[in-house]
Amino acid sequence: MNEIKIFSPASIANVSCGFDVLGLCLDSVGDEMIFRKTQKKGIFITKIEGAELPYETNKNVAGVSAQAVYDSVEVDFGIEIEIYKKIKAGSGIGSSSASASGSAFGVNEILGRPYSLQELVPYAMKGEELASGSLHADNVAPVLLGGCTLIRSYTPLDVLKIPVPSELYATIIHPHIEVKTKDARKILKPTVTLKNAIQQWGNVGAFVSGMYTNDYELIARSLEDVVVEPIRSILIPKFKDLIDLAKKSGGLGGGISGSGPSVFALNQGKENAEKVKESWNEFYKNVGISYDIYVTKINEEGIKIL
Amino acid sequence: MNEIKIFSPASIANVSCGFDVLGLCLDSVGDEMIFRKTQKKGIFITKIEGAELPYETNKNVAGVSAQAVYDSVEVDFGIEIEIYKKIKAGSGIGSSSASASGSAFGVNEILGRPYSLQELVPYAMKGEELASGSLHADNVAPVLLGGCTLIRSYTPLDVLKIPVPSELYATIIHPHIEVKTKDARKILKPTVTLKNAIQQWGNVGAFVSGMYTNDYELIARSLEDVVVEPIRSILIPKFKDLIDLAKKSGGLGGGISGSGPSVFALNQGKENAEKVKESWNEFYKNVGISYDIYVTKINEEGIKIL
Repeated sequence: MNEIKIFSPASIANVSCGFDVLGLCLDSVGDEMIFRKTQKKGIFITKIEGAELPYETNKNVAGVSAQAVYDSVEVDFGIEIEIYKKIKAGSGIGSSSASASGSAFGVNEILGRPYSLQELVPYAMKGEELASGSLHADNVAPVLLGGCTLIRSYTPLDVLKIPVPSELYATIIHPHIEVKTKDARKILKPTVTLKNAIQQWGNVGAFVSGMYTNDYELIARSLEDVVVEPIRSILIPKFKDLIDLAKKSGGLGGGISGSGPSVFALNQGKENAEKVKESWNEFYKNVGISYDIYVTKINEEGIKIL
Repeated sequence: MNEIKIFSPASIANVSCGFDVLGLCLDSVGDEMIFRKTQKKGIFITKIEGAELPYETNKNVAGVSAQAVYDSVEVDFGIEIEIYKKIKAGSGIGSSSASASGSAFGVNEILGRPYSLQELVPYAMKGEELASGSLHADNVAPVLLGGCTLIRSYTPLDVLKIPVPSELYATIIHPHIEVKTKDARKILKPTVTLKNAIQQWGNVGAFVSGMYTNDYELIARSLEDVVVEPIRSILIPKFKDLIDLAKKSGGLGGGISGSGPSVFALNQGKENAEKVKESWNEFYKNVGISYDIYVTKINEEGIKIL
């Protein structure tokens, strides 16, 4: 394969109760990237549209992941990469993960697919590390594997795929304020009460159960975060109103997407997702902050060649 | 129905990663109880064999649960209860829960079944409270509902049933030392590190996933408790050796049953469970503490009329 174009989707990390372990892959929003074999050895970013990002491989999230995959095998050619960013940086729906996963995936394809999608996760994590300062996989795993993923363990890395009910849609609102992942990590407390931790792992278990049984009511009840959301939500204007509105408008519940500022609601069916979108739109247009809202199916397929 | 005899099984609470939320119902060990309609109104414990327990209804775990169910409906008769304790008190396999669940279940049957098994959980919890000093459901839920249960939430009470792979067997060793539930609770720290909490809820989610998919290897990997076991295991002589031995002898892994001192291993198939039993027997007979060991299937049916 000499050239491919890929779609690398956005994602929701944490998914309310599952801080640092759960992730969902989105459908309608994602970056596009082109990978092309070159005679000159190495990884070269030749075009970036849609964002102001460095072209130096080792300073670019996509570059770092691409280089890591490339360096792990012996070949006599190089790869150039064109990046068409569609996901806004710092929006909380995995912009850096789409870049990191996309380049790991694309380079793997050009190299003749030496790795499985599962095996690409640690390579994508290296790019993610450049963006967030820590090795985490809760965005890159759903992008690469599609659907819903759960990180059981980081050492050793153990990533599971959890089934997704066929009618699961997300509504996402992105208030145009800046919340840096690094800052959102810094305000977290290093300890949690045992009581809250128990409630959280009860909810994670219940969420997984709800996903296996298509039990939307159970998914709704388990979308509860007593550990991180009470702290991080203060960075997001009108967070509580958005969640209350989502529930009142037919949504199952929601939370902060990744480290924010995007807020997500999960819904049974597209119609409910659109109702939540409408109610958020009505409400947020008077808040005084610009924003965008969209509805997306949960994407079982994940990253793909176009 | 004027008289019934029931079997109220033992259970494993916590199940390693799921402190205070997961529970498993056991098969071969359990109490027997007889419930008999009487003309005189009230709840009367008329016989107790196998343990030194008070006959006063309000001081007896079974009495408290029985009374709670009885008081919630209007009837013109009473119920007498005979208790045949087979589960040793303080062994960590839900002795008090068998009493509490058994009496709630038996009284409900004599009353003409006003409540579903799910609805009996809070009544059984009242008896459990007398024994442990706190309202918890991780033993009574699996006894009443059978199989594996997960407590998503206590307020409101939200109990789920999780499917059990058909070949799941437990090996249990009960070293004859005393660990009181109240004491085992007291030594727990009121906070946990966020890092450990994340690892724990990753494991709970993975355990649930493994149960749905009959993935014994995943169940094995998720049987990890980084929060409670490091503290409580110091109360159990040779705990770590037992777990290491179980894994080496073909078991999936294990942990402390409830608050101990019993230790459990989960296994794929009866043969592996017997191998673990054998290895524990060989090892523990030289430790200098008397003990008993047994193998039991995970009991999907739960409490039942004999």
